[in-house]
Amino acid sequence: MSDRLERAERDLLRLSTECSLLDSVSTLLEWDEEIAMPAGGVEIRSRQLALMAGLEHERLVDPRLGELLDILESEPSENSLPRAVNVRELRKLEQRQKKLQRGFVEEQVRVRTLAQHEYAAALERNDFSSYAPWLDRILKMKREEASLLANGGSLYDVLLDELEPGMTADFLSELFRALAPELKKLLGQVLGSTRRPEMSSLARPVPVAEQYRFAKETIRALGFDFSRGRLDEARHPFTVRVAPGDCRISTRFLPEDFSEGFFCGLHELGHGLYDQGLPDEYFGSPIGEAASLGIHESQARLWENIVGRRASFWKYFFPRLQQAFAPRFDDVSQDRFFGAINRVAPTFRRVRADEVTYNLHVMIRFELERAMMEGRLAVADLREAWNAEYREHLGLIPPDDASGVLQDGHWASGTFGYFPTYTLGNVIAAQLFAAAHKELGDLDAEFARGNFASLLSWLRNKVHRRGKEVGPERLVLEATGENISPRALVAALSDKVAAIYG
Amino acid sequence: MSDRLERAERDLLRLSTECSLLDSVSTLLEWDEEIAMPAGGVEIRSRQLALMAGLEHERLVDPRLGELLDILESEPSENSLPRAVNVRELRKLEQRQKKLQRGFVEEQVRVRTLAQHEYAAALERNDFSSYAPWLDRILKMKREEASLLANGGSLYDVLLDELEPGMTADFLSELFRALAPELKKLLGQVLGSTRRPEMSSLARPVPVAEQYRFAKETIRALGFDFSRGRLDEARHPFTVRVAPGDCRISTRFLPEDFSEGFFCGLHELGHGLYDQGLPDEYFGSPIGEAASLGIHESQARLWENIVGRRASFWKYFFPRLQQAFAPRFDDVSQDRFFGAINRVAPTFRRVRADEVTYNLHVMIRFELERAMMEGRLAVADLREAWNAEYREHLGLIPPDDASGVLQDGHWASGTFGYFPTYTLGNVIAAQLFAAAHKELGDLDAEFARGNFASLLSWLRNKVHRRGKEVGPERLVLEATGENISPRALVAALSDKVAAIYG
Repeated sequence: MSDRLERAERDLLRLSTECSLLDSVSTLLEWDEEIAMPAGGVEIRSRQLALMAGLEHERLVDPRLGELLDILESEPSENSLPRAVNVRELRKLEQRQKKLQRGFVEEQVRVRTLAQHEYAAALERNDFSSYAPWLDRILKMKREEASLLANGGSLYDVLLDELEPGMTADFLSELFRALAPELKKLLGQVLGSTRRPEMSSLARPVPVAEQYRFAKETIRALGFDFSRGRLDEARHPFTVRVAPGDCRISTRFLPEDFSEGFFCGLHELGHGLYDQGLPDEYFGSPIGEAASLGIHESQARLWENIVGRRASFWKYFFPRLQQAFAPRFDDVSQDRFFGAINRVAPTFRRVRADEVTYNLHVMIRFELERAMMEGRLAVADLREAWNAEYREHLGLIPPDDASGVLQDGHWASGTFGYFPTYTLGNVIAAQLFAAAHKELGDLDAEFARGNFASLLSWLRNKVHRRGKEVGPERLVLEATGENISPRALVAALSDKVAAIYG
Repeated sequence: MSDRLERAERDLLRLSTECSLLDSVSTLLEWDEEIAMPAGGVEIRSRQLALMAGLEHERLVDPRLGELLDILESEPSENSLPRAVNVRELRKLEQRQKKLQRGFVEEQVRVRTLAQHEYAAALERNDFSSYAPWLDRILKMKREEASLLANGGSLYDVLLDELEPGMTADFLSELFRALAPELKKLLGQVLGSTRRPEMSSLARPVPVAEQYRFAKETIRALGFDFSRGRLDEARHPFTVRVAPGDCRISTRFLPEDFSEGFFCGLHELGHGLYDQGLPDEYFGSPIGEAASLGIHESQARLWENIVGRRASFWKYFFPRLQQAFAPRFDDVSQDRFFGAINRVAPTFRRVRADEVTYNLHVMIRFELERAMMEGRLAVADLREAWNAEYREHLGLIPPDDASGVLQDGHWASGTFGYFPTYTLGNVIAAQLFAAAHKELGDLDAEFARGNFASLLSWLRNKVHRRGKEVGPERLVLEATGENISPRALVAALSDKVAAIYG
């Protein structure tokens, strides 16, 4: 490699690392805002975040970055995978940011920080109307951003692409068109069955401190490294990778039902294992980052549902749960418990939904946000549209805003295109697990002995360690030999419904 | 005011606000490092902090700042107090930063973040030697910084001036020379007395959760606003003002002795009340900041000791403590309790020292850090020198490093000149309280009824709301009519010793 090339690569890395550091500071500021910040801090927090975003923008539109990329693009990189990926990804970032003004970027961050605060207050008051003007403001800004980025193309796709590179709304529509009838068929089987899991086996109050202890021990046993991470309580649980060596997950415990906090914890654990498995040595370069949100969600849903709601998992953990919460679960059999944690029943809330109906919740949000982005649905009509969709697809009308249109904070944070990645995650998780199962043999025997290491190691190699090396579709293809497809998910859900509902 | 002047003032404010935002982000990063960050995060944290410091440096040495200050200095500011103060303070900052290179500033921040981590590990292992090379590295950097700033003047003074504007080592030496004999005389009276507080009245284990609740209630009752702040547990308690509306205090509870966590909490409360009382509307301008560390400590020591260890304070709070911790203190009389929390006895640890010996701990540190800064004491000889000083002034030889040279983390964080501000704080606190008492009348009657508002309001007007309007010496003079002097402190301590030891 020539001196000029080497120098360019070094300078690029320096610029890119500064962006990563600014980004990691923003991540910490956001984590703190959710977990620790007193209410009075929100105004300055919005300005701190705006400044970090502005400084990152400044670096990405710096002509020097374009020049460095020109130099590195002019010579194809022999055997330097990181460089090729970094050049590709930084060029993409540079092209996006050049279409936006710094003032606009900063204002967006500032407004969405305040909007999240207003959202939380509206949820507290169970009143969508006070938050609607803020959502409207967010929507306008996101549509403006999308217009600037899309060059006449689809506004929704251009936002989606940032979260899920290469994905399109058309692909997702097709996916839901294939998936929804299958899910509704399964739901019909469930509702028609005479068998009903006994939910009384979960309804045993456990103090939050005990729940926290058991969740933490389980999460540690599954491979999360607490010297490089932490577990907190949060109203809206989430996971962030502040930096290599600093990954933070959270969950929300209900004193009356341990399963909410536990499975939510496993979900975030899945995110956390991915984050802890990314190639830390590439911090500062795009190749060191996650492939996409869909891949991220696939890890979360895999540990939460495919592993966490599996009979063999509980063969190992159920006696431990009985002991940790003794004597509350002494009279519950493993079978009854297994049925209860896998109950299928339509509910209002996405985060508490079973595996079958979950994707219907997602589909509703996907359709609504796409309609808003395309100007077919106004914020003023959102509540009504939301309730109509719930009646149509789940046969339920939310009794209030908190159980309805206000339940998720994604739009308040300016994120459009996030929701469908949950279903992509479910689909990909099923594909990955099927492939791992085929390759690794009898995983259930291992799980029953408390051994999750070979599955984790497979995921590390096939997914985590690869970072942003290839796009999500290619990653799935290389890991499983298949394109993204709902077949494995439908098959797995059919098996489970059959096992529980006959 | 001319257009040109107005524009310059606006531009200056923008630059200054960016510096304040960067600074507030650093503050949050440091708070998180102590309170929440997993061990694995330290490497990236050190680089995040270095980047923030580098960006702030860049703004302070920007020629545009110098030009703006030139313009504003050229026209004396009629009736614009904020502008005059801001120009004065920003010029001072600019002059300092121009003497340092950005790389040096960043490296210092990076190394001290790592050094603090090494310090904590050494304290855990109770072994000074593994940390000594890091302290040596810190010391070398601080001496280099001081040399660059001092232009041949005193290295210690130039560092001190940053924390305590206008203060000098000579003034402090004089202060200790006046104070130490008085303290030793009081200590002699105590040791010669036959009266001894019964310490058994404090030795009642209370679970930390209960201690936390009582401390928080008390802190709220004394005026701390929890919608604009929070209280955490920390190994080394501290207070930070992340931003207006976001002030964070912390304390450290011992299950076996509630008094440690409680009084430490009152100390940090004092810092917190000052921070919450600063003129928030000036965020982004130097005038909105604290006058000095000495003034800050005066607020902490005033609430911790003068208020918190006062008989009238406990007339109100003791029945509440008895109730909160019932039945543990049911057999303790208020008098015995009052004696126990005011016991005077030499100890190894500064943070647990009584009011009389406390300043001897400070004097020792002041002498040692001054000697290190002036090249008269090497880190390799620090432990021996420390122990010799303790033998001379307190008649004790620390049994190990954790009770000796390793007990404070200030030097690890690169802070030289902090310690003497504790004694300045004690001195100033006594002066302020004496003046308030004279002006406000019978404060003890108010305290006994749980009313601390008139004292707080006096402090708000005389100290908090003034921010950095004037220097600390002038502030004390205007609030009390006196120059900084140890007389009020000695008088107050003499009264207390007489009351308890006869």
